[in-house]
Amino acid sequence: MRNDNRADDQLRPLVMQLNPNPYAEGSVWIEMGNTKVICTATVEDKVPPFMKGQGRGWVTAEYSMLPRATQVRNQREAARGKLSGRTMEIQRLIGRALRSVVDLEALGERTITLDCDVILADGGTRTTSITGAFVALALAVDKLNAQQPFEKYPVTDFLASVSVGVVDGQPLLDLNYEEDSNAKVDMNVVMTGSGQFVELQGTGEERPFSREELNRLLELAEGGIRQLIERQRELLGEKGARIGAGSA
Amino acid sequence: MRNDNRADDQLRPLVMQLNPNPYAEGSVWIEMGNTKVICTATVEDKVPPFMKGQGRGWVTAEYSMLPRATQVRNQREAARGKLSGRTMEIQRLIGRALRSVVDLEALGERTITLDCDVILADGGTRTTSITGAFVALALAVDKLNAQQPFEKYPVTDFLASVSVGVVDGQPLLDLNYEEDSNAKVDMNVVMTGSGQFVELQGTGEERPFSREELNRLLELAEGGIRQLIERQRELLGEKGARIGAGSA
Amino acid sequence: MRNDNRADDQLRPLVMQLNPNPYAEGSVWIEMGNTKVICTATVEDKVPPFMKGQGRGWVTAEYSMLPRATQVRNQREAARGKLSGRTMEIQRLIGRALRSVVDLEALGERTITLDCDVILADGGTRTTSITGAFVALALAVDKLNAQQPFEKYPVTDFLASVSVGVVDGQPLLDLNYEEDSNAKVDMNVVMTGSGQFVELQGTGEERPFSREELNRLLELAEGGIRQLIERQRELLGEKGARIGAGSA
Amino acid sequence: MRNDNRADDQLRPLVMQLNPNPYAEGSVWIEMGNTKVICTATVEDKVPPFMKGQGRGWVTAEYSMLPRATQVRNQREAARGKLSGRTMEIQRLIGRALRSVVDLEALGERTITLDCDVILADGGTRTTSITGAFVALALAVDKLNAQQPFEKYPVTDFLASVSVGVVDGQPLLDLNYEEDSNAKVDMNVVMTGSGQFVELQGTGEERPFSREELNRLLELAEGGIRQLIERQRELLGEKGARIGAGSA
Amino acid sequence: MRNDNRADDQLRPLVMQLNPNPYAEGSVWIEMGNTKVICTATVEDKVPPFMKGQGRGWVTAEYSMLPRATQVRNQREAARGKLSGRTMEIQRLIGRALRSVVDLEALGERTITLDCDVILADGGTRTTSITGAFVALALAVDKLNAQQPFEKYPVTDFLASVSVGVVDGQPLLDLNYEEDSNAKVDMNVVMTGSGQFVELQGTGEERPFSREELNRLLELAEGGIRQLIERQRELLGEKGARIGAGSA
Amino acid sequence: MRNDNRADDQLRPLVMQLNPNPYAEGSVWIEMGNTKVICTATVEDKVPPFMKGQGRGWVTAEYSMLPRATQVRNQREAARGKLSGRTMEIQRLIGRALRSVVDLEALGERTITLDCDVILADGGTRTTSITGAFVALALAVDKLNAQQPFEKYPVTDFLASVSVGVVDGQPLLDLNYEEDSNAKVDMNVVMTGSGQFVELQGTGEERPFSREELNRLLELAEGGIRQLIERQRELLGEKGARIGAGSA
Repeated sequence: MRNDNRADDQLRPLVMQLNPNPYAEGSVWIEMGNTKVICTATVEDKVPPFMKGQGRGWVTAEYSMLPRATQVRNQREAARGKLSGRTMEIQRLIGRALRSVVDLEALGERTITLDCDVILADGGTRTTSITGAFVALALAVDKLNAQQPFEKYPVTDFLASVSVGVVDGQPLLDLNYEEDSNAKVDMNVVMTGSGQFVELQGTGEERPFSREELNRLLELAEGGIRQLIERQRELLGEKGARIGAGSA
Repeated sequence: MRNDNRADDQLRPLVMQLNPNPYAEGSVWIEMGNTKVICTATVEDKVPPFMKGQGRGWVTAEYSMLPRATQVRNQREAARGKLSGRTMEIQRLIGRALRSVVDLEALGERTITLDCDVILADGGTRTTSITGAFVALALAVDKLNAQQPFEKYPVTDFLASVSVGVVDGQPLLDLNYEEDSNAKVDMNVVMTGSGQFVELQGTGEERPFSREELNRLLELAEGGIRQLIERQRELLGEKGARIGAGSA
Repeated sequence: MRNDNRADDQLRPLVMQLNPNPYAEGSVWIEMGNTKVICTATVEDKVPPFMKGQGRGWVTAEYSMLPRATQVRNQREAARGKLSGRTMEIQRLIGRALRSVVDLEALGERTITLDCDVILADGGTRTTSITGAFVALALAVDKLNAQQPFEKYPVTDFLASVSVGVVDGQPLLDLNYEEDSNAKVDMNVVMTGSGQFVELQGTGEERPFSREELNRLLELAEGGIRQLIERQRELLGEKGARIGAGSA
Repeated sequence: MRNDNRADDQLRPLVMQLNPNPYAEGSVWIEMGNTKVICTATVEDKVPPFMKGQGRGWVTAEYSMLPRATQVRNQREAARGKLSGRTMEIQRLIGRALRSVVDLEALGERTITLDCDVILADGGTRTTSITGAFVALALAVDKLNAQQPFEKYPVTDFLASVSVGVVDGQPLLDLNYEEDSNAKVDMNVVMTGSGQFVELQGTGEERPFSREELNRLLELAEGGIRQLIERQRELLGEKGARIGAGSA
Repeated sequence: MRNDNRADDQLRPLVMQLNPNPYAEGSVWIEMGNTKVICTATVEDKVPPFMKGQGRGWVTAEYSMLPRATQVRNQREAARGKLSGRTMEIQRLIGRALRSVVDLEALGERTITLDCDVILADGGTRTTSITGAFVALALAVDKLNAQQPFEKYPVTDFLASVSVGVVDGQPLLDLNYEEDSNAKVDMNVVMTGSGQFVELQGTGEERPFSREELNRLLELAEGGIRQLIERQRELLGEKGARIGAGSA
Repeated sequence: MRNDNRADDQLRPLVMQLNPNPYAEGSVWIEMGNTKVICTATVEDKVPPFMKGQGRGWVTAEYSMLPRATQVRNQREAARGKLSGRTMEIQRLIGRALRSVVDLEALGERTITLDCDVILADGGTRTTSITGAFVALALAVDKLNAQQPFEKYPVTDFLASVSVGVVDGQPLLDLNYEEDSNAKVDMNVVMTGSGQFVELQGTGEERPFSREELNRLLELAEGGIRQLIERQRELLGEKGARIGAGSA
């Protein structure tokens, strides 16, 4: 039995509240169990200098945790004067994952920045950020489309993410903090609505893992992500109806 | 009439939710109208190097805004690699204000750090942070007291803060963002439960102000702060009962 | 009796020497007792990026102390790689105060930077900086006017500043370092030649203060500032004659 | 046909020269085609502060590229004043990978730092760094063992890494720079001598990938890594004979 | 004729005022023509970590210019967040030069920091800083000796510095700013009271120089430094009497 | 006898390999004994902002050591977040020295950046960098000339550098690390093919030096540099034939 009574292939309770932020072009309050993240999408009519004049847009992400999101307080990165390697790695991952389902030509010369701010952390903050940021992005693109319909809809598929790992020899879905601390193998998986992989980051620092374990972990992840995307679809409703419409 | 239909001496709706953060020693979710701040108190059994071995404690504060707390997205200070002057000024103010109602000897050699993270900003973020941080601090001290009663209770009085200003020639209480942008004179006031001043920061960058205007602004602030402290008292209930008990 | 034999409402000896720096557009060597500051005004024909093309000017200030301006040597901020919160707070205050008596439209699209470098510190370095920087600013504007008379004279009033505080229960004017260290209440006041307030920063970190104490401190400050402005007027003579001429 | 005439499952020519650096405890000059990296191992009799007194050692890595290692010159990170996210991500990966085959208790309270400096970059710099750094680490541990034999040999297995990717729809082993630039899917794989996975980082930013593609890429990687480890074994000879001896 | 009517081998007017700073252990206000520098010596009873417990002292220097010391305002290094290469080079030179005439064993485990702050710059700021800093150092050591006589006097010789250069084909002593800007060859020389070289930094970026030119420049420098040291000797009087006493 | 059996006026074995880097416009692998440096020249068709539109080019240099170039590992400057004073001093010296033999007008509005990366350090890294960087520069300019012949050839003379010093009272040429550590006097000399001085940096921190010692050191340096330039000439062959051709 898991420490919170879940089955091995069971997600934690998922809460998503749309548009809690009245200023942002799209925003989501997302909870996976006790992990709570605010994701906001900001649209700006400019692109980074190296992309100017190419007619293509850009999607990028930033990630941060409140100092007391964790059991022990962390020093602010702003106070230390630099981002940690962990933060950089995570925000690069989120941005890359989101770009995989955005047609940057179709988006046009604008930037969408996804801010993922972790209010409370109980494991899976990067995967929860991706799942939430996708919804904030979808809301922002829908809003742009309402103002001026895109010729080709720039969001090409749904996207969600979950963590899996091996704890006490047992492959488990959606690790909470305690499980994560004890995991020998740990993997973050990002997949699309069409069931393909976008990112796969597995690490066996504590002990290496076999092809068989890998296969079992991927199955767990696929099952979890299918459920998450189902929930995104329901919640977005009409606002998600055009997703993938530009891909055909 | 004000842009949100308030009377000149009327506060915005106040919401305070105690202990939304299960890890922190004390925490508050506070809203003054659309300004929303999470304040958490972290207790650590150590003091800054320059205070070691003196038997006195320390209270300090940090302040930050989520990038999209405002109508236009702000770059993260962590990304820029340094705190802005505004942030430093605000967190110094919050820390100083809170220390004025804490007996650092009675607290003993420990540090309480108040993190004030602005989720949404609609004017008055620093004053709302002080009002909320005081409650988070009171909760943390009450928790310490429950574990091991203090000889002398370290919180010596209640404390709250509000902004006042002159807009279109009219002195107003508790400015929202739009009012604040148009204010010629702008003042932040911090007062104790016993009705005394702790901080007074008035500025007339747009035009200087007279002694009469100052007096009217102070009256408005006193009235507002009295109401805020009333609400703190109610909300803390038994957990606030010992405040000031060590002062007699 | 005060530690330097002054009456409670007596300023320290004031020395101001005009234009000690042959390169700067205006400069002052100012002493208030043992506090000694060099203030220089630099005029540049450009404004910060966010103000370009608006036809308005800008006035800003920077503040620093030599490492051995104080009894114990301070590490240089350049060596630490960042400005302290105290420095940022002070230079923001100086800039804001000076802008309150400058008509930025009348100044035209140029920037005046006031550098306040503390050679020796014995309390009141920020208020002395403001009093001195105003004179450097006035000299620089007079020089611009001599080259090409302004349609509307951009300096709208005189400006000076002084500190007041409560030491051993006694409200005192113009605290020196030893008094400042023992002050329970401490206030910096900036006023114009017409007797109005520009900045008021009072703090009772050691103990809160009452409305009566506030009133007494403001009276002391008003008296001191009146004398400082009298001295500025005398010293500037003809070079200060146009100040306020554009305001009518 | 590939742009350098290799078969799809063919590695580039591998060169490894042992101990080119007379000061380091272990060092390797490694070339995979035109990618050239110097890896040095430094042994220090101390551990990071958070590990003191636990009797365990630490293995960490740093990664850098000479400014003209690439076709276009890159600004030095030392000149920019901070490490890029890419660099941090890579050095975290190298360190994590190496630690997976080191028994930190057996190593004892010392730190081994692997510096991977890329002299010339033609794709696969991070995987080449891992393959080379393992050899430098093995040499350093062998040297320590010669001075004072370990009770339990701390290196528990061989370790190497290679990149794989999908280019023009074709899964390929060991991408060079031109191939890497055109890859739609890109994966870095780290494996042990016993054929297990240590790290798996696959990304489909350009287009997502299926389970079948993943399987084919993993097969290519396994084949390549088997050859790399064979070469490490040959080259280390007697110096590698104890690897894994402590694991039994 | 030189632009200020000096002969080729003539120094600018030299002013030195002892101990203008009442807090510092030694201080000098020095002027060479329009170049004006405040040098203060701070004595601290500690040494840098790498020297602890060796019974030896340390002498170090820091150098800075006020932003408007020059004709065009320079940005503060504290604002830019780092020291320029020029500043570092200069303060390393000053420290090295001073240490050449201090017996660090005789000084004992304490640090003397020489702060050289340029108030006005008209060429030769680094050489003027060295000449002044030596006097501040001598005053500080004399003060230490008065409190507790040294067994061996730690200052082993006098020390001064001057610049020389080739302007319009003419070797000149003690260049002012205008001359320095037009110099093809430029050299800073530091010498002791016994007429030996401590530092020699010659540069011919504009055009290389011959052995003959070098010889002529060194003669000019020797003559100038002899005069500077004469003036130091006179000014220090009794306070300089022990210099070199420990060397015999 | 010297610790490596050289005569007092004997250089260490010199190795130079041209163009080891296939991407750079010019590159050299240079060894002076155990000191090994990679020098690469990068040509870019732009100049620093302050030089734009003047029709003149720029030559600049950067210097760095691999962390384990030395017997004890040094922390990376990129990790510390800033360049050391030593590094800045050295790269300023290299750039200045190279510019002395380049006609920047003749070069035209482009920048050549010389990167000197020390792979192994055994004394004389800055002088070896200069000798090598000159060759890389010459190769890059020859390549530019091959593409489009210069009207006036921009390299005006050969250039090399060597260190000299006084060790155990004995003036020596080309100090290795052990000698350098024991040197009382230490000098770096840069000279041109026509036998003139470009840079002279002598320091007697350990003990001052006389005019006679200076003369002897300069003779040693002249002899060494003559040999180095002979080798550059041979090695460059036809590619160096135009050097100085523009000067006549």
